[in-house]
Amino acid sequence: MVGGGQLARMTHQAAIALGQSLRVLSGGPDESAALVAADVRIGDHQDLAALRDLAEGATVVTFDHEHVPTEHLRELVEAGTRVAPGPEALVHAQDKLVLRRVLAEAGEPQPAWAEVGTAADVEAFGGAHGWPVVLKTPRGGYDGKGVFVVPDVAAAAALLEQHGTLLAEQRVAMVRELSAQVARSPFGQVAVWPVVETVQRDGVCAEVYAPAPDLSDELATAAQELAVRIADRLGVVGMLAVELFQTADGVLVNELAMRPHNSGHWTIEGAVTSQFEQHLRAVLDYPLGSTAMRAPVVVMANVLGGAAADPDWTGPRLDERIHHFMAHWPDVKLHWYGKGQRPGRKLGHVTALGEDLAEVRARAVAAARYLADGVVDPAFAFPDEH
Amino acid sequence: MVGGGQLARMTHQAAIALGQSLRVLSGGPDESAALVAADVRIGDHQDLAALRDLAEGATVVTFDHEHVPTEHLRELVEAGTRVAPGPEALVHAQDKLVLRRVLAEAGEPQPAWAEVGTAADVEAFGGAHGWPVVLKTPRGGYDGKGVFVVPDVAAAAALLEQHGTLLAEQRVAMVRELSAQVARSPFGQVAVWPVVETVQRDGVCAEVYAPAPDLSDELATAAQELAVRIADRLGVVGMLAVELFQTADGVLVNELAMRPHNSGHWTIEGAVTSQFEQHLRAVLDYPLGSTAMRAPVVVMANVLGGAAADPDWTGPRLDERIHHFMAHWPDVKLHWYGKGQRPGRKLGHVTALGEDLAEVRARAVAAARYLADGVVDPAFAFPDEH
Repeated sequence: MVGGGQLARMTHQAAIALGQSLRVLSGGPDESAALVAADVRIGDHQDLAALRDLAEGATVVTFDHEHVPTEHLRELVEAGTRVAPGPEALVHAQDKLVLRRVLAEAGEPQPAWAEVGTAADVEAFGGAHGWPVVLKTPRGGYDGKGVFVVPDVAAAAALLEQHGTLLAEQRVAMVRELSAQVARSPFGQVAVWPVVETVQRDGVCAEVYAPAPDLSDELATAAQELAVRIADRLGVVGMLAVELFQTADGVLVNELAMRPHNSGHWTIEGAVTSQFEQHLRAVLDYPLGSTAMRAPVVVMANVLGGAAADPDWTGPRLDERIHHFMAHWPDVKLHWYGKGQRPGRKLGHVTALGEDLAEVRARAVAAARYLADGVVDPAFAFPDEH
Repeated sequence: MVGGGQLARMTHQAAIALGQSLRVLSGGPDESAALVAADVRIGDHQDLAALRDLAEGATVVTFDHEHVPTEHLRELVEAGTRVAPGPEALVHAQDKLVLRRVLAEAGEPQPAWAEVGTAADVEAFGGAHGWPVVLKTPRGGYDGKGVFVVPDVAAAAALLEQHGTLLAEQRVAMVRELSAQVARSPFGQVAVWPVVETVQRDGVCAEVYAPAPDLSDELATAAQELAVRIADRLGVVGMLAVELFQTADGVLVNELAMRPHNSGHWTIEGAVTSQFEQHLRAVLDYPLGSTAMRAPVVVMANVLGGAAADPDWTGPRLDERIHHFMAHWPDVKLHWYGKGQRPGRKLGHVTALGEDLAEVRARAVAAARYLADGVVDPAFAFPDEH
């Protein structure tokens, strides 16, 4: 697996059960997966020699992020390496303009969009679809990076100056965000999990509710079918997360991830087969596992570096917070990534299972907040967007 | 963790979620845990220098087996290493005579027993408690090794000649075998799982049913309380499995394991907190997690090396069997240990969850048998003992 982050770390856990061991290409020895995997290569994912070294003797090469240059992956494939997802599929998760074009050809629902190279292009787009306009760098964005909401042409011009050609998108009137996850094997077998609701804060995933509450069966099925069609059309092998905007009229495709995804962490305890195990099954060309839920309601909450990540923090230290977390919430499951603490960084996540969304969410969110900043907040209102 | 077997392998999986990484002392680089852990020391668990090297810088030293010499552990403790369970507790899982004496002092239920050094001792014991007599080597036995059912004095004399002093036990009229698992922290917090039924074949654990079917609440509670009393009395830190004989009159203590145990593998998917995570919580002095079950019925079946482990085997190979297993049983969970195949060896296990014991057991046992020897057997009667 290219990348030594928490996705590789949790994929290694799943690999152990399958009798496998993950070889990881990590940027450094202190990355999440490098701390726990038996076979770690330290190197840069943009370095073809490092990628070739990783691939040597491996059954298949797969990814914990989308940042490997497409041309390097083509070289690996030409040299006989199995790469899953393959470069022709993966480019749709790497390049948002490529994705928009393909979805347009396929007639799939997405926000109004245009490729914009000049301020005049953005002015025309804003005139047609309204201001503000969302501008995105086609490549390299994640967790809200590379996404800009611009109020006027001057702001757009500055971004074009800095980044070159951008993707312009209509800012849609969104009810909420959903994620539809599907796994696809080389044989073409697919498995879908229930559609979930994702809650972002400052562009970063904060909470996931499975299944998405109050989602009609029709819309849930439509979202799952959309994800399967995209997986098939693009020839995805492995996990595909289709991030969706729910609007008054249905769902629109926001973007894709072709790997285990934050919106699927709940599946570790919450589903018979986790996204990590399923990704391995798919890329290793094994039959896929059941995606049935283990409980009626599952909530995942990220632990994002908070006040406690500040070097001047004087509250309870991490080990003390973990102690209190375990004493207070003996039924909330911890996943700690072993990374250094920085404000806003994904340090871990927690998962709670139960019957009632409000109760399950309160438990998960309180636990995650306590781990992040040592504070217990008695009030857990749903986000305002809700 | 001393020992590189499957227990260490699965403990490493649990450690990853807690933000930890297990350092493993493994007899060789191909042992189960050595294949997947980031920090592996190759060495002999009877070599004090290897144990000292393992302990250097570790938070705590714990075990995946009982074979470390007690005097070495005392040396580690004297040098300031935290060892959990400590040598004074662990000796009760290492030496069956020591255990029998302590249980006798405590008045806990156990089979009639005696320390026997001569044929005359065995003759007297058999005269008092009936033949055949069970003779056990006090140390070093596991999975049926070191246990002998002897029909007469001549057979006993031969064993005494070979092994020296032995433990003689009455062969009890057993209804079935049970296991009561408890975790205990240094603080003295305890957590118990439901009592399970274990089914042995040729002295090796083959199946585990959680909870033990048709066990009265009174007897279940009595078995749990017995396990907690023993854990407290011996000062256990970590997991304790109390293997029990159920007789017409109640339960008798067979033997102890002070580590994760085969009778608790079902907890990985079947309980909120697995025995592996709980062992880590206990030895690291964290609060213990919930032991609630995730489903009404959970069955674990070991995959024991079968016909397919024979070098002349011409049936489906392991990878093919895993393919068919996954296609056929998408909801049965696999744990494969990565070891070489040998007849009778524990190669992996599977776990199934559900509502009805007969249905869940049929699924788990069929899957395990197929993985072992590539044969699907349509008839899954309960063992005759039942």
